[in-house]
Amino acid sequence: DNDVRKTINIAVIPGDGIGKEVTPQTQAVMGKAVGNQVRLNYVDYDLGAERYLRDGTLLNDEDLESIGQQDAILLGAVGDPRVRSGILERGLLLKLRFSFDQAVNLRPTKLYPGVNSPLKNPGRIDFAVVREGTEGLYSGMGGYIRRGTDQAIATETSLNTAFGVERAVRYAFDLARKRGGKRNVTMVNKTNVLPHAGALWLDIMDKVAQEYPDVTWDYLHADACTIFLVTDPSRFDVIVTDNLFGDVLTDEAGAVVGGIGYSASANINVTDEHPSMFEPIHGSAPDIAGKGIANPTASILSGAMLLEHFGYDQAAERIQRAVEEDVAANASRSRSTQEVAQDIIARL
Amino acid sequence: DNDVRKTINIAVIPGDGIGKEVTPQTQAVMGKAVGNQVRLNYVDYDLGAERYLRDGTLLNDEDLESIGQQDAILLGAVGDPRVRSGILERGLLLKLRFSFDQAVNLRPTKLYPGVNSPLKNPGRIDFAVVREGTEGLYSGMGGYIRRGTDQAIATETSLNTAFGVERAVRYAFDLARKRGGKRNVTMVNKTNVLPHAGALWLDIMDKVAQEYPDVTWDYLHADACTIFLVTDPSRFDVIVTDNLFGDVLTDEAGAVVGGIGYSASANINVTDEHPSMFEPIHGSAPDIAGKGIANPTASILSGAMLLEHFGYDQAAERIQRAVEEDVAANASRSRSTQEVAQDIIARL
Ligand SMILES: CC(C)[C@H](C(=O)O)[C@@H](O)C(=O)O
Ligand SMILES: CC(C)[C@H](C(=O)O)[C@@H](O)C(=O)O
Repeated sequence: DNDVRKTINIAVIPGDGIGKEVTPQTQAVMGKAVGNQVRLNYVDYDLGAERYLRDGTLLNDEDLESIGQQDAILLGAVGDPRVRSGILERGLLLKLRFSFDQAVNLRPTKLYPGVNSPLKNPGRIDFAVVREGTEGLYSGMGGYIRRGTDQAIATETSLNTAFGVERAVRYAFDLARKRGGKRNVTMVNKTNVLPHAGALWLDIMDKVAQEYPDVTWDYLHADACTIFLVTDPSRFDVIVTDNLFGDVLTDEAGAVVGGIGYSASANINVTDEHPSMFEPIHGSAPDIAGKGIANPTASILSGAMLLEHFGYDQAAERIQRAVEEDVAANASRSRSTQEVAQDIIARL
Repeated sequence: DNDVRKTINIAVIPGDGIGKEVTPQTQAVMGKAVGNQVRLNYVDYDLGAERYLRDGTLLNDEDLESIGQQDAILLGAVGDPRVRSGILERGLLLKLRFSFDQAVNLRPTKLYPGVNSPLKNPGRIDFAVVREGTEGLYSGMGGYIRRGTDQAIATETSLNTAFGVERAVRYAFDLARKRGGKRNVTMVNKTNVLPHAGALWLDIMDKVAQEYPDVTWDYLHADACTIFLVTDPSRFDVIVTDNLFGDVLTDEAGAVVGGIGYSASANINVTDEHPSMFEPIHGSAPDIAGKGIANPTASILSGAMLLEHFGYDQAAERIQRAVEEDVAANASRSRSTQEVAQDIIARL
């Protein structure tokens, strides 16, 4: 599916806050990295808080159809203090992930030399989280009745299908093979508390694992996983987990490797029927937005994941290496968004 | 409700693994701490893996009725590699929490001087997590159909009631007042993804907060909370959250303060209609069970919480202080379970 093509049409959604500042820098880095190997054709979409506040649009059918015709999406960040929490997340970000059936939310976690981990003895941290991206508690299913009374009740339902879980699990096993590290997949869940979903996940792990005799797997409760992320993060190779556990664990993992400023992600449509989406895992950071000081590294690394997705492995590796060198040399200096990007470009 | 009585009848469930080793030591410490101020009348219950493997019993109606007549429960740990994951947890531990309507799972998190935090700059960590204990995703509600087919689907439902959430939230505000620290309650959830449950929790926070004008409150997404627990744990005073987020966050918090060997907990029936249950948050640790080397500190601190619950604040504080002194002097030494308890008793 990683076909090499002459032009990649990329929907660019800078979104809100620092998303608008880091995304253009990422485009500059990507352009430099691919040279004239491939044309990166950017199509800009005005989506996010500004648009919503202006005309009430989050992501309409027209937007969806147009974005759906591009090959990939480069997203900055979504979220604005002027918009009630949840509106932009569900109406834009999650709608993109769900509409384009982005089955896998891939989140590599790596401690770069030079980056200051909050841990005393972080060790060598280099693992990837494969977070299921289209179901679980993110389905939005549930209800809230008798609101405002003493008898109020609200439910949320976690949906787990063999179809959805299997493609994420399969991706995780493939990835463990491709990474060529410990070749181990750790499934994370709470099977002791979630009997139904836990059993389905374990059933699928059992089944898929048989096709990968060269890859081992183990199981860890989510609570125990939060401990190991702090006490022994180097034990992990590939973690596969559901949408909500994945959300929480990847933020903790990001913190452990020195802050989510270094954490990239890819929301992957595994059949390439719809565009995949590449985004830093950080948010729009309203507190520093507009100052030009946001670290664009996570966004730039997401751009590298985009290029890798389309088979431009060398360009992706060049960005990776330039980032590693840049971080090793400069992680402790305070630089502007543009300076960081320029420093990375200079090393390409 | 914290009435001072002449005798406290305590159901003792050592359970499995190191639970059997730490619990008697806790009883010894508690006995010494109260002196002849109150009689601690222990009633032993043979529950856990051994009993289950012997006669298939987890926790029958007779057990429940008898335990229900005691004033409190002192639990060691539950879990055994010979029993499939989930059986003992749901059939014994969670059944106790639910049967006795233990609305609040209170988990103080404190970094004791002398204890080695995995963090470079932990700062002064001293907060408490109020975890709702009787609903959320722990309801066990859901289903798993078409198992073994490509069309399999499994669900889990999170139940959130005004009744259940309000008593936990109210407990959190009372606690913030009682602690006399920052007087702040942080609600943790994922309101941007869980619209129904998130709205109910926020509604209740809004409502209850009005009765506590001297206590401030804020809201944090669970993923952001996992970050702050690693980068800035001293910001927290009281955290209130649902059953599953609470499970995950308290294990991370335990790791941050040097390991769940120091983390005590109380499962509180807020009306005192049924017994409350006091247990360390660690598990049965099969890897070190039987060696007499488990650290009894978390269990001993849970014993102190039990005494505090019945109004024996001074005895509880004496244990707290003895533990703090012991930890400061000895945390880096390796001692047997009994040695630790003896050292603590010597300081009482
Ligand atoms: C913004 C929010 C909806 C999103 C999520 O929960 O998935 C974010 O936390 C993430 O991890 O990408
Ligand atoms: C053993 C398990 C069922 C339990 C839970 O999930 O509540 C444990 O992790 C805890 O935190 O006390």
